[in-house]
Amino acid sequence: SGSGNILSDFQISAVLSDSAREKSIFIHGKLADQEAVVILEKTPIREDTLGEIFSGSRLTLDLRNDIYSTYRLQAPPHINEIKTTVVCPATQKHINKYQRQQSFLLEETWGDYQSITLPYIEKQSFSVQWVYNILEKKAEAERIVYEDPDPEVGFVLLPDFKWDQKQVDDLYLIAITHRRGIRSLRDLSSEHVPLLQNLFQKGKEAILQRYNLSASELRVHLHYQPSYYHLHVHFTKLGYEAPGCGVERAHLLADVIQNLLSDPYYYKTRTLYFPLRADNGLLSKFKEAGRL
Amino acid sequence: SGSGNILSDFQISAVLSDSAREKSIFIHGKLADQEAVVILEKTPIREDTLGEIFSGSRLTLDLRNDIYSTYRLQAPPHINEIKTTVVCPATQKHINKYQRQQSFLLEETWGDYQSITLPYIEKQSFSVQWVYNILEKKAEAERIVYEDPDPEVGFVLLPDFKWDQKQVDDLYLIAITHRRGIRSLRDLSSEHVPLLQNLFQKGKEAILQRYNLSASELRVHLHYQPSYYHLHVHFTKLGYEAPGCGVERAHLLADVIQNLLSDPYYYKTRTLYFPLRADNGLLSKFKEAGRL
Repeated sequence: SGSGNILSDFQISAVLSDSAREKSIFIHGKLADQEAVVILEKTPIREDTLGEIFSGSRLTLDLRNDIYSTYRLQAPPHINEIKTTVVCPATQKHINKYQRQQSFLLEETWGDYQSITLPYIEKQSFSVQWVYNILEKKAEAERIVYEDPDPEVGFVLLPDFKWDQKQVDDLYLIAITHRRGIRSLRDLSSEHVPLLQNLFQKGKEAILQRYNLSASELRVHLHYQPSYYHLHVHFTKLGYEAPGCGVERAHLLADVIQNLLSDPYYYKTRTLYFPLRADNGLLSKFKEAGRL
Repeated sequence: SGSGNILSDFQISAVLSDSAREKSIFIHGKLADQEAVVILEKTPIREDTLGEIFSGSRLTLDLRNDIYSTYRLQAPPHINEIKTTVVCPATQKHINKYQRQQSFLLEETWGDYQSITLPYIEKQSFSVQWVYNILEKKAEAERIVYEDPDPEVGFVLLPDFKWDQKQVDDLYLIAITHRRGIRSLRDLSSEHVPLLQNLFQKGKEAILQRYNLSASELRVHLHYQPSYYHLHVHFTKLGYEAPGCGVERAHLLADVIQNLLSDPYYYKTRTLYFPLRADNGLLSKFKEAGRL
């Protein structure tokens, strides 16, 4: 066991969810008497490690049939790591977040937004302190890939926690606006087009320069509902089926800009559709209002 | 290196494809002078190995921010194996099968559609005879789940071939319009709203009746570009990440109807974005026109 392995004392309460496809698992438990969520996810297989995998591994034959054979391969541990995320202390909200839940598609008119969603967001007063920490360089400053410091149209671009930055195949960056108070798509109007265009253009340029991926290799989108109510944009590699890139939740930034240019109040008139998990408090509000 | 590790002599020619999400990689090379394909895929994390992972691993801190911290974990090799499949001797067909094609996001204005896409579609004259066979009950008649026979607003609803119909978790049905000559989103105008509304409403009712899934449990969408140019709509289970449901290709039917109601010629004015694989003929046409 490695020195300083704080997880050796982790007491497992329950597996919240797992994915055989993605080789990940979400576990609830206790770490030194505090509630914690631990997320394990195996890392992608990197091309530059193949030589070492083939030469330095232990191979056990499982079965052979004609031209096909399968083996179990034990690779050197340092090229076969598991990305581990610890949330501690974790609140019941964190635990619910990672608990596998059924989803339902909601239909939100502008009236629904005003009478159900907005009051819910305001009452919850979700903390975005961690976002301000990033913007103020109090945290993750060394992770910043690009920054435009302008207070009106500027932003910070940094890797999403989901991305281990070892390969661009699953590139995932987040652009967070310096401007505060824009909660989501619903707050956008044509006045924000310069901000969105600046972020789109400079974000693409920074990714081309740093990762050598052109704009046509990117999926640049926003979520509605977002997971936190401070405007941010997802830059993901096209072809990588990133979580949250489904049509039911994602909105291409190019479309958002196009929509605002064609109608300054597009997001204040449209019905928007989005999925919510069964345990989401906002879903209960929609139910109470007879909207689900 | 383990005894009998036949892969220690594997000569890598090329990585055919890989998946950062699924932690797999497909490699072409030579094994003792024979063509071979080697597939590596990390194994799912099993609940019954968690104790050993937490107690017996080496943990290295990557970063810490507030309640979040991330680590790299080196697990004991025997509980962190890589499934290895060897195809040897491999033919060119095997190699092509595993070769991934990169995708690029195209930007299609209405002008591009008229000058590049439409001529390409018309020149290819892709056959939709198999669609007509279904509509005329010359094929797959026994698979039809629901039909509205009306020639103007009617449609046939049947399971997609991708769905084995064993469980509703990955439900996937296709609604094909009886009306012919509507190639894609680009052909839609407000005159088609009654057709779309009828198909949406009756499709949802049929799925509720047959599979006991309510409308809020469905993702109902169209593709652009579609894989065949006869109007059809995808009904998939929300929460099932069906192929093609990403924001870069899918359009919610509810949004399509809303768009046509707000602007009868919405799809004849908008810039649309869609991904194409590098080997797609339409992509070459966009390149020739200097649009990629």
